[in-house]
Amino acid sequence: MLILRDAFYGIRRFDDFQSSLGIARNILTSRLKGLVEAGIMRKVPYQTHPLRHEYRVTEKGRDLIPVITTLLAWGDKWESKDVPVTLIHKDCGEAMHAKVVCDHCSKELTAFNLSIDPIPQVVQERVTATRLAKA
Amino acid sequence: MLILRDAFYGIRRFDDFQSSLGIARNILTSRLKGLVEAGIMRKVPYQTHPLRHEYRVTEKGRDLIPVITTLLAWGDKWESKDVPVTLIHKDCGEAMHAKVVCDHCSKELTAFNLSIDPIPQVVQERVTATRLAKA
Repeated sequence: MLILRDAFYGIRRFDDFQSSLGIARNILTSRLKGLVEAGIMRKVPYQTHPLRHEYRVTEKGRDLIPVITTLLAWGDKWESKDVPVTLIHKDCGEAMHAKVVCDHCSKELTAFNLSIDPIPQVVQERVTATRLAKA
Repeated sequence: MLILRDAFYGIRRFDDFQSSLGIARNILTSRLKGLVEAGIMRKVPYQTHPLRHEYRVTEKGRDLIPVITTLLAWGDKWESKDVPVTLIHKDCGEAMHAKVVCDHCSKELTAFNLSIDPIPQVVQERVTATRLAKA
């Protein structure tokens, strides 16, 4: 997730990710490999002698922006020891927090106005069993 | 994340998480401990002889709903091998996908109408260095 955040900042090269994140090279190698295998980033050669690659975010990776922005909003609220990051919404020029809404009625989503359908069978059985045990 | 998803389904007890997720008990113990330490779940006794606890999602945990719903929407689009989960928005009764909007102008957020301010110093330096090297 931090690699992806840095990629959105504009970082593309292994050494730059490593400087920014300060993690061991073997761990970074394995994380980047995982992101490439998952189709979230891709390796693109930027020079041929010697061959060197940089890492770019794919469309699948860019589609994680809503997840990252909601996580940032959560972090700003609950983990205030982190340095807050200001996101500027270019369309209106304002500093923004991500807000999640229903794509039908555009009302904000909370834990209380949401249900899941169908609840997976295994979960259904457990919940029923728990409720029966309580009755 | 899967533990939290199950908790939102209504699962509360260790054995039920274990049946639902099918992960090793020691791994589940350590994950639940991490969630409790992070303040995302809390342990509540449900019987005293013998003492037994269940795990409930806290307010901090419930605030992760936007993150989870955006991740589900991403998964439905990109990882179609997973069973799709239908979220019902109780306010309008419709099956919904989470949509992330700017909390000022309510327009949808994308990777292309967002900038970060300020870019952290270390990232700024790296990006500048990369750009200079390219020039």
